[in-house]
Amino acid sequence: MSGGNTSRERVTLFDTTLRDGAQTNGVDFSVEDKVLIAGMLDAFGLDYVEGGYPGANPTDNRFFAEKRTKRAQFTAFGMTKRAGVSLSNDPGVAALIEAKSDAICFVAKTWDYQVRVALGASEEENLDGIRQSVAAAVAAGKEALVDCEHFFDGYKANPTYALSCAKAAYEAGARWVVLCDTNGGSQPEEIEAIVRAASAVVPGDHLGIHAHNDTEQAVANSLAALRGGARQIQGTLNGIGERCGNANLTSIIPTLLLKPFYADRFEIGVTEEALQGLTHLSHRFDEIVNRAPNRQAPYVGASAFATKAGIHASAIVKDPSTYEHVRPEQVGNHRRVLVSDQAGRSNLLAELARLGIAVEKGDRRLDTLLSEVKEREAVGYSYEGADASFELLARRTLGSVPDYFTVESFHVTVERRHNALGKLVSVSEAVVKLEVGGQRLLTVAEGNGPVNALDRALRKDLGVYQDAIADLELVDYKVRILNGGTEAVTRVLIESRDDSGDSWMTIGVSENVVDASFEALIDSIIYKLIRAGVQPA
Amino acid sequence: MSGGNTSRERVTLFDTTLRDGAQTNGVDFSVEDKVLIAGMLDAFGLDYVEGGYPGANPTDNRFFAEKRTKRAQFTAFGMTKRAGVSLSNDPGVAALIEAKSDAICFVAKTWDYQVRVALGASEEENLDGIRQSVAAAVAAGKEALVDCEHFFDGYKANPTYALSCAKAAYEAGARWVVLCDTNGGSQPEEIEAIVRAASAVVPGDHLGIHAHNDTEQAVANSLAALRGGARQIQGTLNGIGERCGNANLTSIIPTLLLKPFYADRFEIGVTEEALQGLTHLSHRFDEIVNRAPNRQAPYVGASAFATKAGIHASAIVKDPSTYEHVRPEQVGNHRRVLVSDQAGRSNLLAELARLGIAVEKGDRRLDTLLSEVKEREAVGYSYEGADASFELLARRTLGSVPDYFTVESFHVTVERRHNALGKLVSVSEAVVKLEVGGQRLLTVAEGNGPVNALDRALRKDLGVYQDAIADLELVDYKVRILNGGTEAVTRVLIESRDDSGDSWMTIGVSENVVDASFEALIDSIIYKLIRAGVQPA
Repeated sequence: MSGGNTSRERVTLFDTTLRDGAQTNGVDFSVEDKVLIAGMLDAFGLDYVEGGYPGANPTDNRFFAEKRTKRAQFTAFGMTKRAGVSLSNDPGVAALIEAKSDAICFVAKTWDYQVRVALGASEEENLDGIRQSVAAAVAAGKEALVDCEHFFDGYKANPTYALSCAKAAYEAGARWVVLCDTNGGSQPEEIEAIVRAASAVVPGDHLGIHAHNDTEQAVANSLAALRGGARQIQGTLNGIGERCGNANLTSIIPTLLLKPFYADRFEIGVTEEALQGLTHLSHRFDEIVNRAPNRQAPYVGASAFATKAGIHASAIVKDPSTYEHVRPEQVGNHRRVLVSDQAGRSNLLAELARLGIAVEKGDRRLDTLLSEVKEREAVGYSYEGADASFELLARRTLGSVPDYFTVESFHVTVERRHNALGKLVSVSEAVVKLEVGGQRLLTVAEGNGPVNALDRALRKDLGVYQDAIADLELVDYKVRILNGGTEAVTRVLIESRDDSGDSWMTIGVSENVVDASFEALIDSIIYKLIRAGVQPA
Repeated sequence: MSGGNTSRERVTLFDTTLRDGAQTNGVDFSVEDKVLIAGMLDAFGLDYVEGGYPGANPTDNRFFAEKRTKRAQFTAFGMTKRAGVSLSNDPGVAALIEAKSDAICFVAKTWDYQVRVALGASEEENLDGIRQSVAAAVAAGKEALVDCEHFFDGYKANPTYALSCAKAAYEAGARWVVLCDTNGGSQPEEIEAIVRAASAVVPGDHLGIHAHNDTEQAVANSLAALRGGARQIQGTLNGIGERCGNANLTSIIPTLLLKPFYADRFEIGVTEEALQGLTHLSHRFDEIVNRAPNRQAPYVGASAFATKAGIHASAIVKDPSTYEHVRPEQVGNHRRVLVSDQAGRSNLLAELARLGIAVEKGDRRLDTLLSEVKEREAVGYSYEGADASFELLARRTLGSVPDYFTVESFHVTVERRHNALGKLVSVSEAVVKLEVGGQRLLTVAEGNGPVNALDRALRKDLGVYQDAIADLELVDYKVRILNGGTEAVTRVLIESRDDSGDSWMTIGVSENVVDASFEALIDSIIYKLIRAGVQPA
């Protein structure tokens, strides 16, 4: 689609998932989450990864103790120098300079009213803060960006002052001057006109747009800014962010790459090949933040290429392109209704090849596996996040997974009562009965909760396999309720690791959280035994 | 906002929730649902309510046996006359004419390729079908509309033919010729330009737009069509619809009414007073179709006016308009300042005011509450998602929450074993011992898992409070592990609801998932008792 047109202009993509996205209600990143997500964004081809606000909290301080990207500009966010203190006495700016980032994105006020009311500073003091902060970043060998907070409202109130802030940032050496629609209320036409006005004082290839979704037009506003001359778009994965969210890069990226309307004019750092990982990226991110993926999400949603039986169904058979604005494979998604066995099989073959499981294209067992996967996904399994469980399922269907051991029964209790000292205590205990190579093993363990007790009991004595699982470690444990209410189906995802540093994910689904956890624990142990090349006793 | 400007042009709103919205994955309206929703749409001030496809299924036949609106044009949807049959021999058109509707919206193909491939008809036969169908509706005393399917793709392929279809519909007497972006892939600029081209053959005040959200721009595309000259917008409540959904009227209506950019130019049938019912309408609709409301939805989402950042929170207290693009009350929503570890006193005061908890600004207990919140958030609580638990914490610190009951102990078991038939079964059982007003209560219940068993045991017999909690229902249950591994801290969020339709969220945090769940369950029950004004026994 994007042809070989060499005169296309480069549009830069700036991801703020880990910074502005952290303002989302219910989203709370750990340092480990941030490391993982930054790596995903970097590999996908984003130009900037903004990681947080060093100096503001311990998580971000730890995150910025190292550079976390290979290709992308690793960016720290913070405020410009405060009025009334010298640069060297501003701890905020100092923390930004010290952070192990390639770039600093300063947020600056550009609405005269806000400068007076919120900062209590003079207009000139604010301009001076912008200039000094940018100069300090540049002097420290870093790239500087300036987020012009409330730029559009500020421009409507006092265009001269808003533009003077943008100009001050640019002249002080900022690589990008980013115009923010902070409260998200501006309309595309306004965005386009005001960006065009700003391009009179800052060249368009130094102007960015930071839009919010408060009128459901963050994507349209970002694209309107391109029309106005801006060449950087800021946004987040899956459009997370404060209130109604930030501009959704998961929608903007495929539109820029696949719609000739944009692809003929612009180029971006994400390749069409990388784009085929978009759906996986989007869903994996949701797994990490433990959110249910939005089925209706453009491009990546489970329903994005689904057609409900009706007048469209037969037309889709005749020519899919009439009801699909792009080919689902271009974004790593697939057609849902009328899922052609061909498409399903080729997906499956690709996945098996990725896992190194050799199978002939015409093997009948592929159909068995395909229908097994579909049946399981219908009751709540999701193999997208659980490759180890998928591999076990595939190996069970296509080859054979050894019968390492048999679980006869387990029994878990959780008791909360007052102890002898009158203190309320909870005690969790699990008993597991196993058979390993003809030998019956009974183990009991206590834990911090029912699943922890079960995990400990299981791994306390696996007989002849004990050495092989000695370095198995649980890294993460996630629970999602699929239908709502405690009677609903529970999906448990467990991430395990061993001394090699590799980690793998397993899944369990049941009405019962303990059962679901047990299934995922067992899968993890069996996967580890296969990895270790252990023969069954 | 909308002033007294009498030269504003009227924009007509056409709701297709009950027709195109019925194509949504997982949405299935009964006749009763349709009657209820049509009434809600009618009362809200929509101009057209499209109810379905009479002749296509028994539900729609029953629904169209009566007129279902008082003010809005009650509209039936169906296909134009088929090629090769006479009008009187087309059962589809006959069913439309017989339906008790005020208007008929015919869907017609306008892409030459589709006419040939999907209909197997000639271009002229298709034009003739449009003309005859429209004329028949008009002759029957009904208003006629024509949905031009694939108009934008058709126009790009063969503008002359696409325009000739629109013109044929208009000249035959169609009140509205609606241009459909059927596969949802068009961009706002394309929409605007093509609508403008169409307005050369059909006057703008007879042109409509029907957009889909496949590039997340259905709202922007609808507004771009206004710019191009169209004066009818078709869409659905909460943007439901096939694939990624239809244009979201829940976002478009407040934008048209509250943004001077549009309000100064256009007027619509929904009043500013009716608009104050928007949030309720949106949530009530979600209740009817049993979907969890989207917290991030523009205007109506629970997070739409929520602020997490401490720096923004103090600015919001100084001047709400700086971070709110409209006043939340204008759409029947309200401000939520998220209490989080970034919060300060101003967050807390704003939140207490919203909860109706009176406290002096200088009250020392505010500091106690703030440090309590911070301590709790440091160990894993997160009150931004759990307003009911926050309210209980605040009331405990500032006033008093009655001691309704005391939990002496509980005991939960989960057992997996082979039953008498040799089948593997899991049984979960919970025993709870409580003291209520001097009376000791012992209850036992089984459940699908430990938490469900505990929930059932707790609510099985609360003695004198039993009646007050009879309509308490668990809606959602979420578990998050905070540090990774089964030994980590577990955060449980529970959403509860009662017959009033209101829902509330409570939180529990513990190393033990059962303990954490129990804490959230207890908070929910106590919150419900306070809501119900129950005095302690």
